[in-house]
Amino acid sequence: MQNIHELTASAIARATNARELTCVAITEACLAHIAEREPAVQAWHYLDADTALRQAHALDSAGANGPLLGVPVGMKDIIDTDDMPCEYGTVIHRGRRPTIDAACVALTRRAGGVIMGKTVTTEFANFTPGKTRNPFDPARTPGGSSSGSGAAVGAQMVPLALGTQTTASTLRPAAFNDCFGYRPTWADIRCSGVMEASGSMDTLGVIARSVEDVALYRDVLVGVDAQPLQRWDSAPPRIGYCRGHFWDQCEPYTQRLMDDLAQRLASAGAKVTDVTLPAEFDGLPDAHRWITSFEFVRARAWEINHHWEAISARLRAGRIKDGQDCSYERYAAARALAERCRLQMDAFMNDYDVLLTPAVAGEPPLGLEATGNANYCIVWTSLHVPAMSLPLFKGPHGLPVGAQLVARRNDDRRLFAVADWITRMSA
Amino acid sequence: MQNIHELTASAIARATNARELTCVAITEACLAHIAEREPAVQAWHYLDADTALRQAHALDSAGANGPLLGVPVGMKDIIDTDDMPCEYGTVIHRGRRPTIDAACVALTRRAGGVIMGKTVTTEFANFTPGKTRNPFDPARTPGGSSSGSGAAVGAQMVPLALGTQTTASTLRPAAFNDCFGYRPTWADIRCSGVMEASGSMDTLGVIARSVEDVALYRDVLVGVDAQPLQRWDSAPPRIGYCRGHFWDQCEPYTQRLMDDLAQRLASAGAKVTDVTLPAEFDGLPDAHRWITSFEFVRARAWEINHHWEAISARLRAGRIKDGQDCSYERYAAARALAERCRLQMDAFMNDYDVLLTPAVAGEPPLGLEATGNANYCIVWTSLHVPAMSLPLFKGPHGLPVGAQLVARRNDDRRLFAVADWITRMSA
Repeated sequence: MQNIHELTASAIARATNARELTCVAITEACLAHIAEREPAVQAWHYLDADTALRQAHALDSAGANGPLLGVPVGMKDIIDTDDMPCEYGTVIHRGRRPTIDAACVALTRRAGGVIMGKTVTTEFANFTPGKTRNPFDPARTPGGSSSGSGAAVGAQMVPLALGTQTTASTLRPAAFNDCFGYRPTWADIRCSGVMEASGSMDTLGVIARSVEDVALYRDVLVGVDAQPLQRWDSAPPRIGYCRGHFWDQCEPYTQRLMDDLAQRLASAGAKVTDVTLPAEFDGLPDAHRWITSFEFVRARAWEINHHWEAISARLRAGRIKDGQDCSYERYAAARALAERCRLQMDAFMNDYDVLLTPAVAGEPPLGLEATGNANYCIVWTSLHVPAMSLPLFKGPHGLPVGAQLVARRNDDRRLFAVADWITRMSA
Repeated sequence: MQNIHELTASAIARATNARELTCVAITEACLAHIAEREPAVQAWHYLDADTALRQAHALDSAGANGPLLGVPVGMKDIIDTDDMPCEYGTVIHRGRRPTIDAACVALTRRAGGVIMGKTVTTEFANFTPGKTRNPFDPARTPGGSSSGSGAAVGAQMVPLALGTQTTASTLRPAAFNDCFGYRPTWADIRCSGVMEASGSMDTLGVIARSVEDVALYRDVLVGVDAQPLQRWDSAPPRIGYCRGHFWDQCEPYTQRLMDDLAQRLASAGAKVTDVTLPAEFDGLPDAHRWITSFEFVRARAWEINHHWEAISARLRAGRIKDGQDCSYERYAAARALAERCRLQMDAFMNDYDVLLTPAVAGEPPLGLEATGNANYCIVWTSLHVPAMSLPLFKGPHGLPVGAQLVARRNDDRRLFAVADWITRMSA
């Protein structure tokens, strides 16, 4: 039998609901593995074994059932819980103790999930990294801003973690940590109780070790009955292969891995077509910059009023300066462009079930001072489409490299079905 | 000279920045008037004179300047401040003390505003009223859900207050309290630190006693330099007169007052045209119902998990039951319909500077068990357009009846200019 801490969330939930494993046994197994790996990985900003075990005990005692029964979940430390601190990756909020669970936490608990602890985030879910290291090579970044969530799932400390994505903050750490990362259709999942970076772009994001787990947790977070993962069983999937705006920044091995995958999918029966995005999409990276910066500076006005000196120079000189320099007119024009592109994207996707595109430039880069190239998600994030990173490749150092799939807005289930098909093809 | 507590925010800011009045003198004058009126009106959920005066003293001592210098502002009790409780109109959150100002509060303070206290909200900014009474007749509702903000400005306790609007929660209490109410283009003003009712619909809303004050506070909240109110000086305004979906529910005197106004505006030179909304807009009230209910039930998952018995029967049987019954497919279809209508509205508004439409059915109704007919805002709220209620009429009991103007998305300044023109025409 597999080690308990290696089980997927779906496997855990099957075992707990069938009373083959207790919630306490699972939580203890994950805590033991965390104790072993945490000194090297540093995924957790807050972890208290008693708080986790108390939840597991309560579920066992109550004879509870649920789609996530006994599943340990890590929560990025910009997501409030009613029983732990939430500090946003900054000393400014040291000791902050929310009294209400974020909506996503309350929905996770209702499904039987065990909130294991708070995972490391970059400063205000932006650029400046925390302490976390890549579990596959401690000299490399785990990605960001959901650094701890990526590393915790990648190191098999927990089967599931929540991140957020305003640019690439879920898919990039998922890819760098050999996980599946999922950004839902924008606004499908409530962000109540989650720190706002940029409300027009922010979504929650799921990091997991199987497509089935992603699909399961998505239903819990949307607040609907969990449906089994749909197997792709209709005509061969129509896949648009989109090298995209930042192909030139991809490592040559990533370009080869992506081209090979497109060819293998075609051989396996998929209808693969090279696609070029509509011309207006060229404006999306710039629009994303102004929207996120304008909104960040307003959303975090309290910190800027009172704690300017405690904000990193990088954040002040980057996003905050951009946001202060951006006029309302430029901001409104950027929002209008993004809206026009979203409608074009709806029509564009009539011909494809999904687009295939890189998730990252290559393996997680060396060094812990930065979190890697975020460009591969900017366009899709701005389009509000659902997106997944799939841990399909290994690079020259044997480290993970992700591919990305995107689907039409509100077509998240189709995304999962094709992701599952591709994952099985590639196994 | 006017009593200090009767001054508009703009007049106060002119006087304080010119050192003709101190922030303390203004705060004291408003506190004194509150002490006189509060026993009858009950607008405040939390008011502590020392906390207000401390802010005013600090501004005076610092020799501060700012577009809202010394302006006392009431904050609806679903908006966090770092120095007062925030209880959402429910016993569930009794004693909750946030540690961060909401973005709108931080921006208000930066502009020199004095946060006077927390105004009464209905339960979770929904249906069940708080203790507030209409200042013009204590047997009548002040409207909701921003009940205290409307009553506090109407009773001249403060010149400005913030509410929120998910259906009609700013414009209706503004109209019932003889004030100007303003709902901005959706998403122009960050809601960070404001309780989510339904993120796809929620906006902040301004309640004031002049168009100039509305325009001033809007710039502060958007986080841009305050521009003077633009006077309408181009061609006569093109006004679409839209009796709207709920004309039949209007009191006959409201119908007459509205028709008369349309005629007077035409006589004053405006190009007034009767308009009928695009047919698809007929679906908006239903779409609004499912969107707000679906989102409310997820956003407030923590309260539903832990405090079911403390939620009012009215809220449980209404919005919460709707939200639990609504499938994701129905919700997504409602969101898609609303998006299509927003694009149609952009095009529709090419022919008009504003639409003129009722804000309410009539005078504030008798009784304190309900907050009045909210239908007159549902369509505009769902369209994400900026809207204002204007206190232009008196009904048969001499009580206020509001008219409403709406403009194209992002055209808030045009809305102010026409509102100012109409207000001066009607004076």
